Amino acid sequence: MSRNAPRIAIVGVAGRMGRTLVAAVEQEPQAELAAGIVEPGSSLTGVDIGELAGLGRLGVAAVDSLAAAKDDFDVLIDFTQPRVTLANLAFCAEHGKAIVIGTTGLDDDELAQLDGYRDRVAILFAPNMSVGVNLTLKLLETAARALGDEGYDIEVIEAHHRHKVDSPSGTALKMGEVVAESLGRSLKEHGVFAREGQCGPRSDKEIGFATVRAGDIVGEHTVMFATEGERIEITHKASSRMTFAKGAVRAARWVVGRDAGCYDMQDVLGLKG
Amino acid sequence: MSRNAPRIAIVGVAGRMGRTLVAAVEQEPQAELAAGIVEPGSSLTGVDIGELAGLGRLGVAAVDSLAAAKDDFDVLIDFTQPRVTLANLAFCAEHGKAIVIGTTGLDDDELAQLDGYRDRVAILFAPNMSVGVNLTLKLLETAARALGDEGYDIEVIEAHHRHKVDSPSGTALKMGEVVAESLGRSLKEHGVFAREGQCGPRSDKEIGFATVRAGDIVGEHTVMFATEGERIEITHKASSRMTFAKGAVRAARWVVGRDAGCYDMQDVLGLKG
Amino acid sequence: MSRNAPRIAIVGVAGRMGRTLVAAVEQEPQAELAAGIVEPGSSLTGVDIGELAGLGRLGVAAVDSLAAAKDDFDVLIDFTQPRVTLANLAFCAEHGKAIVIGTTGLDDDELAQLDGYRDRVAILFAPNMSVGVNLTLKLLETAARALGDEGYDIEVIEAHHRHKVDSPSGTALKMGEVVAESLGRSLKEHGVFAREGQCGPRSDKEIGFATVRAGDIVGEHTVMFATEGERIEITHKASSRMTFAKGAVRAARWVVGRDAGCYDMQDVLGLKG
Amino acid sequence: MSRNAPRIAIVGVAGRMGRTLVAAVEQEPQAELAAGIVEPGSSLTGVDIGELAGLGRLGVAAVDSLAAAKDDFDVLIDFTQPRVTLANLAFCAEHGKAIVIGTTGLDDDELAQLDGYRDRVAILFAPNMSVGVNLTLKLLETAARALGDEGYDIEVIEAHHRHKVDSPSGTALKMGEVVAESLGRSLKEHGVFAREGQCGPRSDKEIGFATVRAGDIVGEHTVMFATEGERIEITHKASSRMTFAKGAVRAARWVVGRDAGCYDMQDVLGLKG
Repeated sequence: MSRNAPRIAIVGVAGRMGRTLVAAVEQEPQAELAAGIVEPGSSLTGVDIGELAGLGRLGVAAVDSLAAAKDDFDVLIDFTQPRVTLANLAFCAEHGKAIVIGTTGLDDDELAQLDGYRDRVAILFAPNMSVGVNLTLKLLETAARALGDEGYDIEVIEAHHRHKVDSPSGTALKMGEVVAESLGRSLKEHGVFAREGQCGPRSDKEIGFATVRAGDIVGEHTVMFATEGERIEITHKASSRMTFAKGAVRAARWVVGRDAGCYDMQDVLGLKG
Repeated sequence: MSRNAPRIAIVGVAGRMGRTLVAAVEQEPQAELAAGIVEPGSSLTGVDIGELAGLGRLGVAAVDSLAAAKDDFDVLIDFTQPRVTLANLAFCAEHGKAIVIGTTGLDDDELAQLDGYRDRVAILFAPNMSVGVNLTLKLLETAARALGDEGYDIEVIEAHHRHKVDSPSGTALKMGEVVAESLGRSLKEHGVFAREGQCGPRSDKEIGFATVRAGDIVGEHTVMFATEGERIEITHKASSRMTFAKGAVRAARWVVGRDAGCYDMQDVLGLKG
Repeated sequence: MSRNAPRIAIVGVAGRMGRTLVAAVEQEPQAELAAGIVEPGSSLTGVDIGELAGLGRLGVAAVDSLAAAKDDFDVLIDFTQPRVTLANLAFCAEHGKAIVIGTTGLDDDELAQLDGYRDRVAILFAPNMSVGVNLTLKLLETAARALGDEGYDIEVIEAHHRHKVDSPSGTALKMGEVVAESLGRSLKEHGVFAREGQCGPRSDKEIGFATVRAGDIVGEHTVMFATEGERIEITHKASSRMTFAKGAVRAARWVVGRDAGCYDMQDVLGLKG
Repeated sequence: MSRNAPRIAIVGVAGRMGRTLVAAVEQEPQAELAAGIVEPGSSLTGVDIGELAGLGRLGVAAVDSLAAAKDDFDVLIDFTQPRVTLANLAFCAEHGKAIVIGTTGLDDDELAQLDGYRDRVAILFAPNMSVGVNLTLKLLETAARALGDEGYDIEVIEAHHRHKVDSPSGTALKMGEVVAESLGRSLKEHGVFAREGQCGPRSDKEIGFATVRAGDIVGEHTVMFATEGERIEITHKASSRMTFAKGAVRAARWVVGRDAGCYDMQDVLGLKG
């Protein structure tokens, strides 16, 4: 790792996402794996976090509180639970640390609390940290604006593993919304989520969705723009949760040293404006 | 063309399928373009059928009845209308010609009439003459039997142009049926034609369908068999009606000289048994 | 067509691209098919250009010189030969018409001549008029800049029909160049056009190309950005020359009424800057 | 698991493949996880093999020799090293156990030794245990025979991770060989492994290969059969080594109770003859 690499702490290093984050930081030469936090009183306190992650000894012992790591890190990565995250955010605000939050499921009240810290600490908050998904959203906006109302039919095709319970996926819906907004359409009005039987020909403005559920597919999304003579397809394929971990590490490197504020992945990727 | 190439007659050479058939015969060295028939009394009688097809002069003048071409051909290709086809079939039976029938939309009575000729003439009858689609059905049967009840999820994904009115396509349904039969399942019971909202996890035996409608897509079908660790996908993509014309020419070459009987594309392709 | 729709003239309506252009203008409600030009003295002079294109009578008779259509059109679309194009450009400059040029194969001298008109006439000049290809180039630039040197491997995969003689395609090379430039790399240094045998592991900066040649594939290009955990793929599929004709019509609508200058498809699509 | 489920032993449960095999047996209701072997004298002797595999306690303690598990199992799964495998094979022959061998890299002498046991023990030996890959080979044979010399161009496209050192992959070559053999061609003569520059049009009989190397792609193979009007594509995508483990478990269930002999995955899948 380089000299000025930010020192990164990870909460929840005993969990699956935590272990993946450890591996992602370890791979990144421009980041230092500085601390790993486990639950208070955990029997894993003191264990090497590299061994926990199946990477071999890395020389960093797990601690059971943020306070114990206070002097060791510049930025915290937190993919835990809303309450834990808000407590960690308070700690970061108090001690001048940046924070990257990938926690999901915050209710309106918790979101308001989170937002209350925006003047005191640099927060990177994104429900989907994947660099590729966030880039894809930007590409969709560009494509939709360029193709405008020029007779391109738009379809969103997504595939996930057999255990997924909702259709279409949240990411597919987000993609549809970005396209609809860019075209001044409403997904509520123009989204077509199922076709079965004698549906008649396609309407010009509809945004169609097709859903595949099979095997162990981590997550694949394609948005197709098709007209007579050509198709453009923008596809994202996730192959492991490493994509979220790597996005979080990229976010951590970006957010260290920023002014207080609430940022998202579009900021990190330079895709705003 | 070779010496013993069958001499082929085509009915309806003024139509789009007829013109494509002319081009397909012309491309095939093992077949001779021998006659082209237009409607009785048509002003196109006597016109060169190559010029009609946009291929330049081929030296074969259109005639306006089968009788006028009686001595010129060995096998007739007919993609017309049920009534016309049955009349042509009677003619072929009487004069010892083979016949390839790609006509669709025959009702039960017409199908029975057609079948009534099976002892007198070699008939190749197939609603979809595409070599690739027929081969795909065979591959699906092989795949379904090998993967059996070994935990592979099966999904059929199809895409067609914006004008198609029915979902899923007839070919997609046929693919689903072949898979279901090979597995001892019923498509009626296990077919899932639309997923929307909180559907819950996928069931083991369901055969899912996903439908895309966009642009000028001629017809694409994929059947996916997915389990933990791997996927097998069998895909057919049609790019023009030439696929049906070429299948018909292959069928015509195959059926000439056969015993009387009613054959299909699985016979032509050697995929039976 | 609407009241203020630009009146479009097409040179070379007897050729395959000319006929496709006629069909593309006819499909566009915001454009008027105003004139069709054939070679001087052609026997097709006076023929209805709709019938020439296989579309039925459209009420526009072919003329055999631009001069004969002088008062009928606002913008000319020209996919012919360099010399013909330069003569037509001179005519347009003199008579205050805009021009869309899709002609390819201009040498340096001819390019200089073309450029000499930029102060006198609104010229839209693009070797590939496809909206989708031009949009794809913009998407690639955005993607390459966002993913930067973050460990994404870049590969270009293209497929064309069996008759194509060069590999990779010019469009694939252009895509590779756009990506390379956006990343400050040189395609000359980092392009890998073939892999065979014991090549060793992939280097970080290489841009790989894979080429497929088969059947009647009009043209398919995919650029893949892949890293541990995810892939982004940007794909363009052409299905007919209609894609070039439709781009030209869009360009014609855009260029009418513009200031003199030399524009390209990025201007038309609003993708500059 | 069912009453008559075969009792399976796994050698090398401390390794990555061994742990995946433990998970695969555990998932299969028709198999019993009966024993796990680690290296002689290993400190892992006595550890629960479920915990070793990250699956929680399964109640089976690792032993450090086959002899120690002699009475506990019916069939051994062995993905280790040639020498270890041959020793284990001798043990199985002596004690009436079946054996599934996924070990690779045996030299000619070792292969001969292995074959020497075929009269004494039921051996399932396959360098690639994936059900999907083996099924794909069968589908390719069927497709190649049906399409024969009917003008279909054949291309093999494969993609693997950035670390793979050889191109094309062994599996891609095997696929090409199966196609070539089915068509009476020689891959040596007709294989085209790279296209670069002015190659001229494709020849009729060539079998083309295109190679992609990027990111963490486990392994994707597509064989395309394309002609004017249509394409058939047969695709296999591996997403984890679980595909090999599940194939091995399926093989183990199949081989138990068979006559002595040397079988392969085509036998297991019922694809012979």
